[in-house]
Amino acid sequence: TIFEALTEMLAAPEASALCGKTVIVTAGPTREKIDDVRFLSNYSSGKMGFAIAAEAARRGAKVRLVTGPVNLPTPPGVERIDVESAAGMLAAARPLFDDCDLFIGAAAVADYRPEAPVAGKIKKKDAEMEIRLVRNPDILAGFANGRKPGQVAVGFALETAGGIDYARRKLVDKRLDLVAFNIYDGRTSGFEVDTNALTLLGRDGNVTELPLLSKEKAAAKLLDAVESILPR
Amino acid sequence: TIFEALTEMLAAPEASALCGKTVIVTAGPTREKIDDVRFLSNYSSGKMGFAIAAEAARRGAKVRLVTGPVNLPTPPGVERIDVESAAGMLAAARPLFDDCDLFIGAAAVADYRPEAPVAGKIKKKDAEMEIRLVRNPDILAGFANGRKPGQVAVGFALETAGGIDYARRKLVDKRLDLVAFNIYDGRTSGFEVDTNALTLLGRDGNVTELPLLSKEKAAAKLLDAVESILPR
Repeated sequence: TIFEALTEMLAAPEASALCGKTVIVTAGPTREKIDDVRFLSNYSSGKMGFAIAAEAARRGAKVRLVTGPVNLPTPPGVERIDVESAAGMLAAARPLFDDCDLFIGAAAVADYRPEAPVAGKIKKKDAEMEIRLVRNPDILAGFANGRKPGQVAVGFALETAGGIDYARRKLVDKRLDLVAFNIYDGRTSGFEVDTNALTLLGRDGNVTELPLLSKEKAAAKLLDAVESILPR
Repeated sequence: TIFEALTEMLAAPEASALCGKTVIVTAGPTREKIDDVRFLSNYSSGKMGFAIAAEAARRGAKVRLVTGPVNLPTPPGVERIDVESAAGMLAAARPLFDDCDLFIGAAAVADYRPEAPVAGKIKKKDAEMEIRLVRNPDILAGFANGRKPGQVAVGFALETAGGIDYARRKLVDKRLDLVAFNIYDGRTSGFEVDTNALTLLGRDGNVTELPLLSKEKAAAKLLDAVESILPR
């Protein structure tokens, strides 16, 4: 009823479990240099991570947003740190690990980087070329493995199809508390769009399938789930 | 004197040689897919190409701006065509070749693309990986080689150091009328900045070294040089 709705609206809001907590959110793509003008990257727009950072700040958390190159305004009350590569993101985030209650890895960190980036600009000579790539450090797994008791680690798994088993493996392998599994369909969900359909996988085995939501609403739902596992 | 300055200002402007001409400008980077989420690209912001398109439209040209992914507003009076890859840029630009008086290739078209882009998302498995690349078509050279008498072709040569010989070779090899040589120093000139120091190399052997200018002013100077070689 309208009366109940008003009562709910006017009730003193329950303090969020995020209130006063220190949160690291990573967002956006990383760029991995091939030479001084060329790079490897991915289609991440940073929208999901920025929506999470904004919502966490709204709930009273102290938010540090470590972001790759994106074209998004900094959410109010959020401390933003801009980085370019996976190595840069790790260097910026690692000093913050100790002093954080929650790490949400929403960045699409490049898995690989060119083995030997070239200073200057590689000349095009040959009809074919090869780039040798090596694995990048896994920032989220690094946090999760080295964390102190009580620190919470949340990750994303973006898969193009039928990837929920991969998301489940990610939860276990990286020792995360929660994984947001995210089907990339190139249209309504995933990169560069304003909506997202997340399935939340908890360490406890809980599976919550969210409908297609704006990234802002998806961020709120994700943080609801995070609040339920955050130590008070 | 003030009188002379006013007289000049109030004089009927001489019609630009660009007035009524049809111009193709390419701008921005291209993205070359590795799989559905990853790509190769470069740091081009598109600012130089967009500034040229804006200035050419201001001078009365009919401008078609074929641009890779950038975050820039379409200049007034310019017809914009968005593309992603080099192949996409060629497909969009080629049908316009016949009906154009001037082609200015300001895009940083990727020289190479992955030989076999993968549908879906490549799984990270190995510590190392290799991407085999093949050469992309050269859109500007394609135009220059196939053009009709009177059509003018202008290119850019972005080099990190001492590259003016390379720019000169580009002028000859691609059979261009004018090359804007552009030192990439990562700070004041080249990609992602608002200024540019161009050296204009004409087919006639003329070399014009411009100072460090805003990209808008550099575009105007470049078009001044173009006007002097455009058939009336």
